[in-house]
Amino acid sequence: MSRVPKIKISVIGAGSVAWSSKLVHDLLHTPSLYGSDVYFMDINEERLRILRGLAEKYKSEVGAEYNFFYTTDRKEAVRDSDVVINTAMYGGHRYYELMREVSEKHGYYRGVNSVEWNMVSDYHTIWGYYQWKLAMDIARDVEELAPGAWLIQMANPVFELTTLISRETRVKVVGLCHGHLGYKEIAQTIGLDPARVGFEAIGFNHVIWLTKFTYDGEDAYPLIDRWVEEKAEQYWSQWRMRQVNPFDIQMSPAAVDMYRRYGLFPVGDTVRGGTWKYHSSLKTKQYWYGPTGGPDSEIGWALYTAHQEYWLATLAQAASDPRIPVSSLFPQTRTEESVVPLIESLMLDKPGEYQVNVLNGNAIEGIPSNVAVEVPARVDARGIHPKTGLRLPRKILSLVMQPRLLRAEMAIAAFLEGGRQFLIDWLMLDPRTRSEEQAEKVWEEILSLPGNEEMKRHYS
Amino acid sequence: MSRVPKIKISVIGAGSVAWSSKLVHDLLHTPSLYGSDVYFMDINEERLRILRGLAEKYKSEVGAEYNFFYTTDRKEAVRDSDVVINTAMYGGHRYYELMREVSEKHGYYRGVNSVEWNMVSDYHTIWGYYQWKLAMDIARDVEELAPGAWLIQMANPVFELTTLISRETRVKVVGLCHGHLGYKEIAQTIGLDPARVGFEAIGFNHVIWLTKFTYDGEDAYPLIDRWVEEKAEQYWSQWRMRQVNPFDIQMSPAAVDMYRRYGLFPVGDTVRGGTWKYHSSLKTKQYWYGPTGGPDSEIGWALYTAHQEYWLATLAQAASDPRIPVSSLFPQTRTEESVVPLIESLMLDKPGEYQVNVLNGNAIEGIPSNVAVEVPARVDARGIHPKTGLRLPRKILSLVMQPRLLRAEMAIAAFLEGGRQFLIDWLMLDPRTRSEEQAEKVWEEILSLPGNEEMKRHYS
Repeated sequence: MSRVPKIKISVIGAGSVAWSSKLVHDLLHTPSLYGSDVYFMDINEERLRILRGLAEKYKSEVGAEYNFFYTTDRKEAVRDSDVVINTAMYGGHRYYELMREVSEKHGYYRGVNSVEWNMVSDYHTIWGYYQWKLAMDIARDVEELAPGAWLIQMANPVFELTTLISRETRVKVVGLCHGHLGYKEIAQTIGLDPARVGFEAIGFNHVIWLTKFTYDGEDAYPLIDRWVEEKAEQYWSQWRMRQVNPFDIQMSPAAVDMYRRYGLFPVGDTVRGGTWKYHSSLKTKQYWYGPTGGPDSEIGWALYTAHQEYWLATLAQAASDPRIPVSSLFPQTRTEESVVPLIESLMLDKPGEYQVNVLNGNAIEGIPSNVAVEVPARVDARGIHPKTGLRLPRKILSLVMQPRLLRAEMAIAAFLEGGRQFLIDWLMLDPRTRSEEQAEKVWEEILSLPGNEEMKRHYS
Repeated sequence: MSRVPKIKISVIGAGSVAWSSKLVHDLLHTPSLYGSDVYFMDINEERLRILRGLAEKYKSEVGAEYNFFYTTDRKEAVRDSDVVINTAMYGGHRYYELMREVSEKHGYYRGVNSVEWNMVSDYHTIWGYYQWKLAMDIARDVEELAPGAWLIQMANPVFELTTLISRETRVKVVGLCHGHLGYKEIAQTIGLDPARVGFEAIGFNHVIWLTKFTYDGEDAYPLIDRWVEEKAEQYWSQWRMRQVNPFDIQMSPAAVDMYRRYGLFPVGDTVRGGTWKYHSSLKTKQYWYGPTGGPDSEIGWALYTAHQEYWLATLAQAASDPRIPVSSLFPQTRTEESVVPLIESLMLDKPGEYQVNVLNGNAIEGIPSNVAVEVPARVDARGIHPKTGLRLPRKILSLVMQPRLLRAEMAIAAFLEGGRQFLIDWLMLDPRTRSEEQAEKVWEEILSLPGNEEMKRHYS
């Protein structure tokens, strides 16, 4: 491996053990990166300890050559890195659940953060002050301590944070998400072999639309149409009886309704979006997203967070129980996460095609150049080269992308500028708002929650 | 006058007699344009007859040399024009009032057309299908029959129509409005001589903000601040007792509240905008806009339309009653309307500064280049040269301009594309909407009104 330059990768927020252990798995199955230094950083020492147990054990099971470091010192991790991965989520789920509870008391079901085309429960925009500040602090560290490094933004909200960091810093940033893999679920459900499917899905992160869908090179949209017409009802009646995974919504009535109304099929987390039409109550969510109400209902979100706890416990046990090989928890080959292949492309000049989030430039027509879009790109050692001349239908541009962009720009300006008016007007445009007083009261109570002192000063 | 080229001006929608007679007045007081042909066109022969009576009588009173023509043939009026003025409003007020009544039955106070930052009762956007079609038909006539002509767009919605025509045709279009003159009311109310005031007010038509305000060259914003602090309350208590003109709102509590919240003073029709905070009910409107509720309440709008009828009757009487000189109804000098001076600048190369609406290009930073902005511009025979490098505060950009732009883009896409989803989603983002069913029902009833057959097909 002597031809390979020694690479330093740092992972900020590595205490997301479920995610970090997948990264470890992918690294261990990528011999081209052997010899690299990987710094796993988190402020949570207990989580870091679990990860260390897992990673070291797994490394010796595989016999892979990596130098893994575990640290609570962010600057140590970032310094001289070639690649910095930000997967850090500020606060625990409970912090956001508290804000959600206060919101609901004031008539904002699922929280003031949920708005048209962003109903995702942990895609924190307007109430993500600390999360955004953390992401900007990490970007500033990269600027200062690893000025040539790539920053891979995996922490949400990828759309807003990739845009913000690109605009406000000199860092080379790229946002990654795996939601576009929803195209495989579309293929499988309608009976196609995903390996023979070609696709293009573009837009903003979590708001991407299937602009191309082929089977053996032929347009396969007619096959979706036929499935909708002939098979969807039967599929749904079975799905309603057996849905256990709240994320099993790629072919839900919501997705098909969006396809009918907007003209292209929504992919991945896009299905979780939409206007309040799909989200106004638990009953409404269950109609569109199945008995769990989808991941962003009170039921679906509870299932998801409980599953995360369960999986963390499973991983922790594997880390310490000599009877359980860590490898038994993972697939034989690399996962479908693109982060490790992307690092290979960037660092080892191994060209590849990826779904990335970067400033639009002239990738998608009709979207401002300084907004992060999610598009296919060719990646090599010279950088990230998004496709250009991509197009979305006018209906999707004006009814989906622009309302979503409005919310992004409001949240970005609120974060940069501060002041209560941003929060008030955020809700004055919200169909759940009955009066300005309601908007004022809910924010006053959210900002008065313990821990929100600095956020309250920012928005005073 | 032999050095002056013979100019042909056409006025489409000249049956707005109140407006056209002011134009006649200004033309008669502009000797540099003497000798020109002016075609007054309208489909309403009765109105045209009144205008003819007024204009011919006034012309002989003044002894001015113009060739006035009156026609119901739009193509005849437009053909070979140098300047085409579009002041045509499709339908009568009653047509829109019917749509408003249906809206209110379904919970949409003041109509589905009213949205944040466009609460103006006859600034027809989403329900303006026929008005927009008329404006585009006129623009197409200009393209075909008078390809070098300037189209002066005075008919509302100036913001959307200037944008649409600029994007979709090859016509040289400029939108005009007199709302920016509100700066004089600000000056007078706080005790300044308007003649010594300098100002700059920029944004979108009806959404302009006082970016510069000087007195004898010195920054005069502190004088506004002092008035707000020391005199506003007393002014308002008197104003509440004596407000008769619903348009007397330039220094209303609404205007001052917007100034406090957004950081710049709103000018002219901008004050009529805002979120639903200022507009949610008659009582709310009266709190912010005085006892009439401002021009866009049920009271203020009734006062305004009644006044229009009264004024039309006065003009009609003057047209036919030999005892009344037409000149007695008008000021001694030209009005403050900029249309005739603008024609002088364009046609006679008499350079001047005007408040215009044209595509942004690089006039205002942070606004897309292909959107019509209202900005100061230098005008001469070579065309319209807007100031560049103009700036609005980020708070106004994100909380005011972007929500307003979203609505403009939605209305433009709806007009160009058709289909019911545009109308539904227009309301799914509206704080008055309680359910998608409500949105579907109100549109179904609006589209089923007599006269809306073609609009219904467009939005089917």
